[in-house]
Amino acid sequence: MLKKKNKYAVAVIGATGAVGRELLEILEERAFPVSDIVPLASERSEGERVEFKGKNVVVRRLTKDSFQNIDIALFSAGAERSLEFAPHAVKSGAVVIDTSSAFRMAPQVPLVVPEINAHALDGHGGIIASPNYAVVALVLALKPIHDNVKIKRVVVTTFEPVSGSGKEGMDELAKQTVALLNFKDVETKVYPHQIAFNCIPHIEAFLENGYTKEEMGMAGETRKILEDDAIRVTATTVRVPVFRCDAESVNIETEKKISAHEVRAILAEAPGVMVYDDPNKNIYPLAIDTVGKDETYVGRVREDESIPNGINLWLVSDNLRKGAALNAVQIAELLIK
Amino acid sequence: MLKKKNKYAVAVIGATGAVGRELLEILEERAFPVSDIVPLASERSEGERVEFKGKNVVVRRLTKDSFQNIDIALFSAGAERSLEFAPHAVKSGAVVIDTSSAFRMAPQVPLVVPEINAHALDGHGGIIASPNYAVVALVLALKPIHDNVKIKRVVVTTFEPVSGSGKEGMDELAKQTVALLNFKDVETKVYPHQIAFNCIPHIEAFLENGYTKEEMGMAGETRKILEDDAIRVTATTVRVPVFRCDAESVNIETEKKISAHEVRAILAEAPGVMVYDDPNKNIYPLAIDTVGKDETYVGRVREDESIPNGINLWLVSDNLRKGAALNAVQIAELLIK
Repeated sequence: MLKKKNKYAVAVIGATGAVGRELLEILEERAFPVSDIVPLASERSEGERVEFKGKNVVVRRLTKDSFQNIDIALFSAGAERSLEFAPHAVKSGAVVIDTSSAFRMAPQVPLVVPEINAHALDGHGGIIASPNYAVVALVLALKPIHDNVKIKRVVVTTFEPVSGSGKEGMDELAKQTVALLNFKDVETKVYPHQIAFNCIPHIEAFLENGYTKEEMGMAGETRKILEDDAIRVTATTVRVPVFRCDAESVNIETEKKISAHEVRAILAEAPGVMVYDDPNKNIYPLAIDTVGKDETYVGRVREDESIPNGINLWLVSDNLRKGAALNAVQIAELLIK
Repeated sequence: MLKKKNKYAVAVIGATGAVGRELLEILEERAFPVSDIVPLASERSEGERVEFKGKNVVVRRLTKDSFQNIDIALFSAGAERSLEFAPHAVKSGAVVIDTSSAFRMAPQVPLVVPEINAHALDGHGGIIASPNYAVVALVLALKPIHDNVKIKRVVVTTFEPVSGSGKEGMDELAKQTVALLNFKDVETKVYPHQIAFNCIPHIEAFLENGYTKEEMGMAGETRKILEDDAIRVTATTVRVPVFRCDAESVNIETEKKISAHEVRAILAEAPGVMVYDDPNKNIYPLAIDTVGKDETYVGRVREDESIPNGINLWLVSDNLRKGAALNAVQIAELLIK
């Protein structure tokens, strides 16, 4: 769909947000061939400036006419904005790469993690979805295991950072923490309860079956990306008072037996994965160590003896980077290849 | 073993610690018939004062001669102290109730949660163990389900607070948080890594199989208390930047089918359990709401459709209270009944 050019006009929607800023940084860092960068945002941020390649670029207001002459539109402004404006971008001839949840489960929209299912891009209809950050991290670790011994079932509990809710989430954790340390009352705006020094088992809206959208998304998106509807996934997703990087406690049941040693060996070779697993030296993945890293870090790999073929592991990934912005830019790189 | 009296001489070992202070408070609150209270601690705390029934009581130094005329010795000073001094207490004629890990898995030592296995106290040899706080919380929720539909397997991930490491853990989280908010370097003493704004998948020492002592303890203690070696348990235990109250994400596979509705109904009737489960009103258990509560709070009860007979739930319990001090005092109440 994308005409091959030497350089591309790229719009970043939600350019002043947590993922938007990361998108600009990664486009620059990976020397994506950009002819024009067009940062777009809501009225509230119109006129602000963002940095790109050492220059200050003025943020323009997002309208349905924002996409003239745009080749690639990177959306990071939430599902509502994507639902409203992505069709206009496509109509204007741009290819949309959307980091929101808007189109992830739409059957005709490819849901892509480049290391896993780049081929899903073939014949896309103008919109390509980047998965939920918790799913990106998870499938990178699951895919090599699935290819080797077939995964039957996954039980996953997430430890999700406040930056998963954007800058507002980070501000809320910081403000509440300061308030508590000064014996002041806590204000809650982004989350339904205090997040400072607390964990909230509630991410996205609740559905009729008692699961959240986030929890059901982890099951559905995992199956879609791994292209295997037989994989059963049950998730509990929890917000924790951590600024950045998502962690997950993952229990995996496989068809064939696999040892912890073999899992480490397979994952050590897998694209987008780093094995970081030497507990006797206190080496295991941690959120604070994973900020700015491209890979999903995997550790605490153990055989689960409660079933014949079980593995436990703990993984951490930078939710803003590989979980959103980097994955989107990698998709763009595939499109122009 | 314990001679019936009107009132009992009670020693609290580790009286200045987080659990020790809670023990004194709960003895008073529940009007335990105390003739003499004897707070004991290490040399470092000798001469400090603790409050009991409105009076300041001087803390004495723990020695092997501390237990003369003591009827009940409540130990909360860590496993090493228990291993060293509990035998002296027994020799002096006291009954030991130990909240440390020292004797929990010793075959001849009853491991008791009064709501579940009070009968295990019969014929004790002078030492009774109180389980790990994460186990107390878990078995209170599992027991009624097990009695109804038999539990086959449990996959549990914990969110454990810093007070699980005592006052030192709480001080470390507070100090590190203040340091980070002031852009200063973080000091680590209690934990191998920064705990402020971070989650550490490492509680207690690592064993040869890659699990921690805490993780294997959750399996072993659960089976011992539920008196069923067929229950399979696999655990991942994680320290989170929360001061007080332990949370757990629990996936349960049962022999017979049970609905989420039935689980809620069973748990609502269970001793020591409160069902707190109305997600559409943002009602689910939270650490900040559970401080000072006697019960294990259970919510987010959902059928797990990844297996024929599965249930997911989320529970929270006050680790210092029911997880340690309250459970120990309840054991003492059984002994004098």
